[in-house]
Amino acid sequence: MIITLRNGAAKKDADAVIKKIKSLGYAPHVSRGVDKTIIGMIGERAEKHREAFEAMDVVDHISEIEKPYKLASREFKKENTVIKIDGVEIGANKIVIIAGPCALEKKDIVVEIAHLIKACGAKGIRGGAFKPRTSPYAFQGLGETGLKLLVEAKKATGLITVTEVMNVNQIDAVVKYADIIQIGARNIQNYDLLKAVGKTRKPALLKRGMATTVKELLLSAEYIMSGGNHKVILCERGIRTFEDATRFTLDLNAVPVLKKLSHLPVFVDPSHGIGIREHVGSMAKAAVAAGADGLLIEVHPKPEEALSDGPQSLLPEQFEKLMLEIKLVAKAVGRQI
Amino acid sequence: MIITLRNGAAKKDADAVIKKIKSLGYAPHVSRGVDKTIIGMIGERAEKHREAFEAMDVVDHISEIEKPYKLASREFKKENTVIKIDGVEIGANKIVIIAGPCALEKKDIVVEIAHLIKACGAKGIRGGAFKPRTSPYAFQGLGETGLKLLVEAKKATGLITVTEVMNVNQIDAVVKYADIIQIGARNIQNYDLLKAVGKTRKPALLKRGMATTVKELLLSAEYIMSGGNHKVILCERGIRTFEDATRFTLDLNAVPVLKKLSHLPVFVDPSHGIGIREHVGSMAKAAVAAGADGLLIEVHPKPEEALSDGPQSLLPEQFEKLMLEIKLVAKAVGRQI
Amino acid sequence: MIITLRNGAAKKDADAVIKKIKSLGYAPHVSRGVDKTIIGMIGERAEKHREAFEAMDVVDHISEIEKPYKLASREFKKENTVIKIDGVEIGANKIVIIAGPCALEKKDIVVEIAHLIKACGAKGIRGGAFKPRTSPYAFQGLGETGLKLLVEAKKATGLITVTEVMNVNQIDAVVKYADIIQIGARNIQNYDLLKAVGKTRKPALLKRGMATTVKELLLSAEYIMSGGNHKVILCERGIRTFEDATRFTLDLNAVPVLKKLSHLPVFVDPSHGIGIREHVGSMAKAAVAAGADGLLIEVHPKPEEALSDGPQSLLPEQFEKLMLEIKLVAKAVGRQI
Amino acid sequence: MIITLRNGAAKKDADAVIKKIKSLGYAPHVSRGVDKTIIGMIGERAEKHREAFEAMDVVDHISEIEKPYKLASREFKKENTVIKIDGVEIGANKIVIIAGPCALEKKDIVVEIAHLIKACGAKGIRGGAFKPRTSPYAFQGLGETGLKLLVEAKKATGLITVTEVMNVNQIDAVVKYADIIQIGARNIQNYDLLKAVGKTRKPALLKRGMATTVKELLLSAEYIMSGGNHKVILCERGIRTFEDATRFTLDLNAVPVLKKLSHLPVFVDPSHGIGIREHVGSMAKAAVAAGADGLLIEVHPKPEEALSDGPQSLLPEQFEKLMLEIKLVAKAVGRQI
Repeated sequence: MIITLRNGAAKKDADAVIKKIKSLGYAPHVSRGVDKTIIGMIGERAEKHREAFEAMDVVDHISEIEKPYKLASREFKKENTVIKIDGVEIGANKIVIIAGPCALEKKDIVVEIAHLIKACGAKGIRGGAFKPRTSPYAFQGLGETGLKLLVEAKKATGLITVTEVMNVNQIDAVVKYADIIQIGARNIQNYDLLKAVGKTRKPALLKRGMATTVKELLLSAEYIMSGGNHKVILCERGIRTFEDATRFTLDLNAVPVLKKLSHLPVFVDPSHGIGIREHVGSMAKAAVAAGADGLLIEVHPKPEEALSDGPQSLLPEQFEKLMLEIKLVAKAVGRQI
Repeated sequence: MIITLRNGAAKKDADAVIKKIKSLGYAPHVSRGVDKTIIGMIGERAEKHREAFEAMDVVDHISEIEKPYKLASREFKKENTVIKIDGVEIGANKIVIIAGPCALEKKDIVVEIAHLIKACGAKGIRGGAFKPRTSPYAFQGLGETGLKLLVEAKKATGLITVTEVMNVNQIDAVVKYADIIQIGARNIQNYDLLKAVGKTRKPALLKRGMATTVKELLLSAEYIMSGGNHKVILCERGIRTFEDATRFTLDLNAVPVLKKLSHLPVFVDPSHGIGIREHVGSMAKAAVAAGADGLLIEVHPKPEEALSDGPQSLLPEQFEKLMLEIKLVAKAVGRQI
Repeated sequence: MIITLRNGAAKKDADAVIKKIKSLGYAPHVSRGVDKTIIGMIGERAEKHREAFEAMDVVDHISEIEKPYKLASREFKKENTVIKIDGVEIGANKIVIIAGPCALEKKDIVVEIAHLIKACGAKGIRGGAFKPRTSPYAFQGLGETGLKLLVEAKKATGLITVTEVMNVNQIDAVVKYADIIQIGARNIQNYDLLKAVGKTRKPALLKRGMATTVKELLLSAEYIMSGGNHKVILCERGIRTFEDATRFTLDLNAVPVLKKLSHLPVFVDPSHGIGIREHVGSMAKAAVAAGADGLLIEVHPKPEEALSDGPQSLLPEQFEKLMLEIKLVAKAVGRQI
Repeated sequence: MIITLRNGAAKKDADAVIKKIKSLGYAPHVSRGVDKTIIGMIGERAEKHREAFEAMDVVDHISEIEKPYKLASREFKKENTVIKIDGVEIGANKIVIIAGPCALEKKDIVVEIAHLIKACGAKGIRGGAFKPRTSPYAFQGLGETGLKLLVEAKKATGLITVTEVMNVNQIDAVVKYADIIQIGARNIQNYDLLKAVGKTRKPALLKRGMATTVKELLLSAEYIMSGGNHKVILCERGIRTFEDATRFTLDLNAVPVLKKLSHLPVFVDPSHGIGIREHVGSMAKAAVAAGADGLLIEVHPKPEEALSDGPQSLLPEQFEKLMLEIKLVAKAVGRQI
């Protein structure tokens, strides 16, 4: 990192900074201008000492040079990470579509949706048994009963399964019943949950929070990876901005940026991101064109009866049509479904 | 609009609201619940009285029902607006690519770029003679001399031309020399400028500001249109959010939303939006997949010598490759270039 | 809530909405304009059916009329909630200052700080034993050992104690050792944690997340309160915006807004909010002037040795001076410390 | 500025950067780590070459060290700027309150308000003759007729006057009739307007835009100052964030930050900032506690008849009460009114 001292800093104050750098085992690189003195402190993990220097009065500000994450970075691993689950490859040339209802509600409907999305080309089914809801009075999910519906859907179709975990005590159940553990946007900085998922060896789908920077998303991935679980899928799902014409602002800029900075697969969830049924398709196609490795799409045969997220769920016939369109866009960017 | 009164509002206060609605020539629709009273005031331009009601103490809040813009709305005009300039149709099936340098600098370079982008399939050239720069010490543009370079480029290639106007006194010159008047993001609510452009009959390319909602963008278009100039092209170019990994957050969600709300053509400027050369291509393809009618792309043969926006300008060979890719994506979504 | 139908909605589609409202046990209030039909659905908890209506194609949009939270609202309880702990009243006329280090590190320092802040007029000490850190490589807190340091500080000074809980399994320990359970900004929508805290009878200090609206903050309070624990303290600590001159944007607007909407005490944390030591004092005074019931302030005798948040911690002499200034501002707005 | 090269940059690419620095007349300071090379380019106006370096492929990113503004900076002028107008000192110990209606409408009302606010201790009157309105169908102001009302108010009371200018052609009229030229939030980056105001010698009140950073606000001030007009008053009036419980998010953090970075007076406009009448007072007091040098407050005797911004205007009796409270807070922070 680069430490810029206050204008006209006294020599003894500059020396205190230099001494501290040396005491931490780094070599200082000092550049003195007429008014400004800047001191480079370059090397492995220099950034972890950032706050100690910022707390010194002589320091004006600090610029980071090294990235604060390592295992998640493209520098650490050049080739794309490919995660294989029951013959499905995530992060390879084929774009993986995972679809399904927001919440797992009734067995018949879940299995019906599974057959339907499989027939359209989806490779996985998603659905929540533990539901994070803004209001305590909203439907909170079926819990373990819901997880078993997912197992039924897999038995019937062979689709791989994704479901969300909300606290450390649910991890065992989710590991037992599902193929991919989802960490929701609201838990992106629930570090104890990230650490606990890091101790499992299940693939984790990590959704960017609504106020999470790309750097912080990669640091949250690093939490999981530093526990030994390197099977992390990053997922853009919309950030919070001033714009209220859409539910969130799906940030597709994050797709090429994440693919550049990291070797991990990058998914996009257009359903939550834009939150308006009739526009989900446009954003799904745009996500593929931007370079996404996969999509999460909400599908429900009777959205007005869904207990959660009905307004953004596609009808089966809409999903079928969209999958045909996505195939064309995927082909246009040199990929397949 | 719907006027919600404060909980437990006295009857005489509610009556004052009802009386005011009637005095303005509207019919009130009153719904009384146990605690809540809500009063509908429906009809042409009801929203323009919004503040007068909000200023009454008995009013808790107001919800808008009608859209505050009219001429720009899809309700006003169902079919897409198509703007024709020298044989180029903007807003029709063919996607229109307009490329060029950020600022107009030297004649040789401008004409060279014009030939080059035309060969790749671009239909227009862009470049600024009047430059809005954050710092007063940065290059401010060549003024009328710059406009003449644009004319040279058109003479040499037949490309249509776009350039920015920054104040009302520059409008005559821009109308004289260019085919499309650009109103930049920083002037999106410079209402006197919008009104003055509304009095011309030149097509106007209106760039969304960095804190402009979709509704406000359409209201700014309405300013131009209410002056009689209906040839407005809307352009998404990135909004300001907390994310600092990209220059702005290009908001592609705005594309399907604007196409739904308005009949006007919608362009996207991925160069300013993401602001990082190596990611411009991904966002350009995503914009086309999302339904954009056209793109603005910065191209410069020697970006490190450009006096403005070098970091986001594509090199000629990058632009050439991108145009081939864009053609494939356009075809995938049923369009052409 | 108010349901606005799409322009020119067919009568049978409108009737389907009306029928659905009746089937849920509410009385519909229908207002028909020339193009627009709006339908009021007023009554207890109408909002919980919002998504079911939004999912209907005939519905254009829905406006909320009732507040989605109840127990936390000023309508539910008119007088201010006052929480009493060991003789300290939170939410009454006296403004309560709680200070201390970001993280609990060494016994000597914690007890030293406790004596020091008490002498200046603070009523409580804060410090983290479980630390949420953006990077997995940063100091993660001392755990239960840290909690015991807090107990020592209380024994030595009588100050009440506040500490953060990060997951459901830490609640028992925190309930045992501390007087107030803090829920951090990153866990504001960790609903399982909120529910678990709702089952205890310990006062909870709930920090607004960096992308949490005022409405969502109150809904998170509602999660705790609906479990039976009505002792909730709301705390503004900075939201995330585009501005990068400060660490976060401390949103003091939330103070009068929350005091109006809710009967719960409202605290402000200027240290995390602005994140720059030399400006903490200005924001602390502003918070008191805006109507805050209490403040959380970071104090550390040797900030450059602190393992967390050194750059924003006040030095003891700065805190002492600030307390004198705060007393004057408190008096100016009719309150005491 | 500090130029960080891409990891593993080739020596010849690094040499190209060094050569370019030298060719611009600066001395490069090179620090080579194992993977990283960073190069300092320190000196007067180094930042103006930033883009030329960013456009080089070998450059990973650039950190600014010097501030890009100069005349507006505290380094350039240590003591506070005090602007004197008809015996009123702006930027000195006394806090200056400027009040009045949003728009200038009727002579009787303007003069009535002038007498009323003067009696309460205000030193200036504000009101718009040229009004920037989001909708073209809203009241647009009285123009020159409005300016004359302001002159009447001054004649009657001796209050200094502030009014907004929206385009370069209105400057002469505003210079003729008013004491302070206001540049509104929507014109903060209307650079031609800033330059034209820079050529006058009238004090300018510069309102921060809704997406303007502190740095950009100071750069806009620099535009005016670099034209020779050093009498600039900065004004915080609310930024745009995701929060919709308030009209804007009044950012009081900007007050101490601006006072630190610049010698210019800093005002706050709580009326536009929070936009809700009953909360304007809390934010006004908070602004004074945060260190503001002055306030702009909207007052209107009949807000429900105001043609603009009625919902946030204080009633006369509210303003009178607020002024008494502000005096106490001012005294508490060592200032007067």
